Amino acid sequence: MNPTDKHIRVTLIGAGNVGTQLGYNLKQSGCDIRQVWSAHLANAERLAERLGATATDRTEDLADGSDVYLYAVKDDALQDMAKTVSPTGGIHIHTAGAVSMDIFKGKKERYGVLYPMQTFSKGRRISFADVPIFIEASSAETETYIRTLAKSLSHTVTSCSSEERKVLHLAAVFCCNFPNVLYDIAHSLLRETSIPFETMFPLMSETIEKLRLMTPREAQTGPAVRGDEQAMARHLSLLEGNDNWQDIYRTLSQTIASLHAEGEQIKK
Amino acid sequence: MNPTDKHIRVTLIGAGNVGTQLGYNLKQSGCDIRQVWSAHLANAERLAERLGATATDRTEDLADGSDVYLYAVKDDALQDMAKTVSPTGGIHIHTAGAVSMDIFKGKKERYGVLYPMQTFSKGRRISFADVPIFIEASSAETETYIRTLAKSLSHTVTSCSSEERKVLHLAAVFCCNFPNVLYDIAHSLLRETSIPFETMFPLMSETIEKLRLMTPREAQTGPAVRGDEQAMARHLSLLEGNDNWQDIYRTLSQTIASLHAEGEQIKK
Repeated sequence: MNPTDKHIRVTLIGAGNVGTQLGYNLKQSGCDIRQVWSAHLANAERLAERLGATATDRTEDLADGSDVYLYAVKDDALQDMAKTVSPTGGIHIHTAGAVSMDIFKGKKERYGVLYPMQTFSKGRRISFADVPIFIEASSAETETYIRTLAKSLSHTVTSCSSEERKVLHLAAVFCCNFPNVLYDIAHSLLRETSIPFETMFPLMSETIEKLRLMTPREAQTGPAVRGDEQAMARHLSLLEGNDNWQDIYRTLSQTIASLHAEGEQIKK
Repeated sequence: MNPTDKHIRVTLIGAGNVGTQLGYNLKQSGCDIRQVWSAHLANAERLAERLGATATDRTEDLADGSDVYLYAVKDDALQDMAKTVSPTGGIHIHTAGAVSMDIFKGKKERYGVLYPMQTFSKGRRISFADVPIFIEASSAETETYIRTLAKSLSHTVTSCSSEERKVLHLAAVFCCNFPNVLYDIAHSLLRETSIPFETMFPLMSETIEKLRLMTPREAQTGPAVRGDEQAMARHLSLLEGNDNWQDIYRTLSQTIASLHAEGEQIKK
């Protein structure tokens, strides 16, 4: 088994957003996807057809002989899958940010993690080239193998322990899932106006681009960091009738104010 | 006074982040910046020198004869400035998202708003070409003038009432200031690891890019929308010791869950 072989044989366990995108990108990088498993046979079949693989919804049908068994199932299901997937040969790799590598311990011989830190949705195809991939492995030799596989997908491959990966995954929630729900609220607010949501894109992009030059602390703008109580009171009154959004507005504004008050004290 | 003249004469009131960036861009588009006012003379002088203007920190020294008096001061100060700026000729334009045009009513004859919706920080020069600008004016004729001025700065110029602009400004807080404080928390979390904050950029960018194809509701990913209680419990335990961050985590996760529960009900 040599990771520089053109045709690493892969069994793909999971055909959701992550599994689908991984499947496409692995195939493109020259892997031979042999089998696709999903709890829903139709999903497995749809993806398997595109990848030139066979499909199954029965873990007992998963065949021996793959170089890599790649698990892209829900976090909650991983522990069980590590047990029920019967082949023990090959390298067993899960793709979850928040789950320890140890779920494979005592169940498989060689195993590891390949966590592509990105947000995957149906209907949007992701090129893995720029997606940071974090890897971990049960041995140095296995890590070398997983690294080569990851490098065939992405420019950015980093070793990361399960402990660090947990913090990374939490940071990803704060950089993706939580900003997105704030965009969702903005989207709802703008529906009451004639202004399309697309208008916000330059602002949203610049908010990120600034961070290439300065820290988020330095980049903070808006009423809360200026201590502009009048503007904040006006905003809260616009949010009247939605306690949840008012709560978010207050909590985040207070956080901004207190983080910057700390900064002021440090300066003094 | 013809807005297509190459040299619109501008008095710039305010030399902070917005005033500075506006000054640069107006000069570049061919305006003649005559005078710069700031409460801090050194700030006025620094900017005036770059713009080929004179500097003052005394409102009584502001000269008559400009085509445009452009106010880029703090929201709280605008009402007073509209009164104390003595020239009444020319068009008086403020640049604030959250302040009504009516602060000029009864004080100036021709007035309006030119709100560039962007986040401005020292040390980062902004090209206005892609910045959406929202305008409003005291008369149709004045609006035509302000529109021409705004179009010399940006491709995207939209008329917007004071009422709509308030909602827009609130949406901007949800699209910029609030995501930024979440990035700040992620930045702090990652400092405890060996992973640099820059690693998050592809994820942050993709979170926005997805919204060109789907709504934020459709784009939502992460433990809260999956209802992955275990992952959320692990995240909350990682945040132990910081009640504020735990509070933010809980509030935003619950918001995601409830917005998507509504969606499920609508589907049924």
